[in-house]
Amino acid sequence: MRLLDEHAIENIALGAAVLGTGGGGDPYIGMLMARKAVREYGPVELYDLDELNDDDLIVPAAMMGAPTVMIEKMPNGDDLINAFQAVGKYIGKPIRATMSIEAGGTNSVVPIYVAARLRLPMVDCDGMGRAFPEIQMVTHTLYGIASTPFSMSDERGNTVIMETINNKWTETFARSVAVNMGAMAMIACYAATVGQLREAAIHGTISKAEEIGKTIRSARVNEKDPVTTVRNSVGGFLIFKGKIGDVERRTEGGFARGEAHLVGIDEYSGQELILNFQNEHLAVRIDGEFKVTVPDLIALLDVDTGEPITTEAMRYGYRVAVIAIPCTPKWRTPEGLKLVGPRYFGYDVDYVPVEQRYG
Amino acid sequence: MRLLDEHAIENIALGAAVLGTGGGGDPYIGMLMARKAVREYGPVELYDLDELNDDDLIVPAAMMGAPTVMIEKMPNGDDLINAFQAVGKYIGKPIRATMSIEAGGTNSVVPIYVAARLRLPMVDCDGMGRAFPEIQMVTHTLYGIASTPFSMSDERGNTVIMETINNKWTETFARSVAVNMGAMAMIACYAATVGQLREAAIHGTISKAEEIGKTIRSARVNEKDPVTTVRNSVGGFLIFKGKIGDVERRTEGGFARGEAHLVGIDEYSGQELILNFQNEHLAVRIDGEFKVTVPDLIALLDVDTGEPITTEAMRYGYRVAVIAIPCTPKWRTPEGLKLVGPRYFGYDVDYVPVEQRYG
Repeated sequence: MRLLDEHAIENIALGAAVLGTGGGGDPYIGMLMARKAVREYGPVELYDLDELNDDDLIVPAAMMGAPTVMIEKMPNGDDLINAFQAVGKYIGKPIRATMSIEAGGTNSVVPIYVAARLRLPMVDCDGMGRAFPEIQMVTHTLYGIASTPFSMSDERGNTVIMETINNKWTETFARSVAVNMGAMAMIACYAATVGQLREAAIHGTISKAEEIGKTIRSARVNEKDPVTTVRNSVGGFLIFKGKIGDVERRTEGGFARGEAHLVGIDEYSGQELILNFQNEHLAVRIDGEFKVTVPDLIALLDVDTGEPITTEAMRYGYRVAVIAIPCTPKWRTPEGLKLVGPRYFGYDVDYVPVEQRYG
Repeated sequence: MRLLDEHAIENIALGAAVLGTGGGGDPYIGMLMARKAVREYGPVELYDLDELNDDDLIVPAAMMGAPTVMIEKMPNGDDLINAFQAVGKYIGKPIRATMSIEAGGTNSVVPIYVAARLRLPMVDCDGMGRAFPEIQMVTHTLYGIASTPFSMSDERGNTVIMETINNKWTETFARSVAVNMGAMAMIACYAATVGQLREAAIHGTISKAEEIGKTIRSARVNEKDPVTTVRNSVGGFLIFKGKIGDVERRTEGGFARGEAHLVGIDEYSGQELILNFQNEHLAVRIDGEFKVTVPDLIALLDVDTGEPITTEAMRYGYRVAVIAIPCTPKWRTPEGLKLVGPRYFGYDVDYVPVEQRYG
């Protein structure tokens, strides 16, 4: 066990924004929210899964919706607490700790807000090892853990709780309720025991994000080539450097969807890259050919500072490095690829692990 | 207290279809469902509100969605039981009885199904004195009774429970979940005590529907002018006789919406009537002028048999009598008209009580 303070939160949010592969929420919003709670209620205990008992119940807390909306509608926090407590009341058993459902600028640290306010610990793991746009896209699903009871709350005081027959139905219902809640909602779901999570969860995600965050902070001050330093810290491959041109983006069906066009610079001069996203980056084509797809991670880093750029922050003229990072082996199984592979998202290509093309 | 048997169910469903003002579900579907349960589990006890204790908890059960879909997707019943039990479990208190949320061919008798299977009594009242398309449109709302905890279930086994800040928000969330559930869902909601319902509910609706149903059955066999007999039994006014021409209808936003054109016959020859509906009949214009609007009831009766015709049963060539019936005084208050008056539904006219025009 160790304590997460304000400084840790800043690093986690920043580092998780790299793993968030364009999504998972803005690191600044998440940091503000979690920092506020820690300032008021004190630091949060972070446990390894191994330090807890098999029967301990863990409930993740998160935001869902379009990150483009999150920026304009700062969550008030009470809604998140409402969602979390609704699941607890519904289950009727004590919750031992919370965790991040995904790595992402906001969703990595949102549980810290819950933990601080409710004086619960947090567990050092997540359910993706990255961020994904849909509710069923967690390793929990691969290990038969139900998303329900699934609760969602808005800032007005409305709460919806679901019991569904599978995690895809949860996504269907939750997405339309989230649209009605203003394209964003606070959620709590995927209650599981520590025993289940030992097998199902991605271990150490929060610590990993914190390390990456530290590296970014240090690199932008001390390094001549921060992109390379950050890339090494995440075990990724440089696949492109370019200038952002057109960004076509729409908030649709409760998601931020779109496509960005990048024109190569330096050694990539003359090449064109197309990046598709649905909250998170899904696929990269260079000169028309698919080079990286889900479930591998695609991160955009500022060429000058090595800082991650979320999809909603992409602007014309930004100069970025495109980094590809191998995903967790859990996603590379047939079941994993069925859930989050390129074909699920409508791309008629087979998944090729990024290290086969760039390793 | 008296017992409702198969025969009573048939009459209630038929009579309530007149009060259902085109909506509230098909009387045949509702009858089949309730009759099946009564055959299997025995007759259901019907109580007056006065026979129960002030603290007794009453929970209505109903179907929501587009009646056009209901006809094609016969409910299996388990979904209704799931919705009802989900509310009971959530409240954590014993439910004394169920009731109809509205008068309508299906929704008047759907609670009989629940009552028979769960061996609960039913109360002789409803929350509209007619049928209305949206969740918040019940007299409960006028008396400050919350629609939540509101549960909805589908035939697959999915259940959604809501706690909202007002009954309009329940409508918003429930409508999109119902669309995802296949444009139809089984619901339980508006839990209230007998003490609350004495004031808020419309008393005696089930008995009234049964009387109307009996009249229709008798009239079509014994009477030369069944329409007049049925009209007298509901205290209504004949405003038109015509032949159904075009019926434009669409299932949209979880509702059956549309417009029917009727060409006058007999003494109405040369006149044209336009009928607008959203599950239920909303407004009638004759030769371009609004004659009857919500919240007064508009019923279409077969000219030859006096039987009610629901919106989804309207067909080209049917010869019908159009009957207007005064609504309960509860809807004629400023608060009532704000909730269900013509302006809520987008008609830029003041409400004129039907008896002022036709009395």
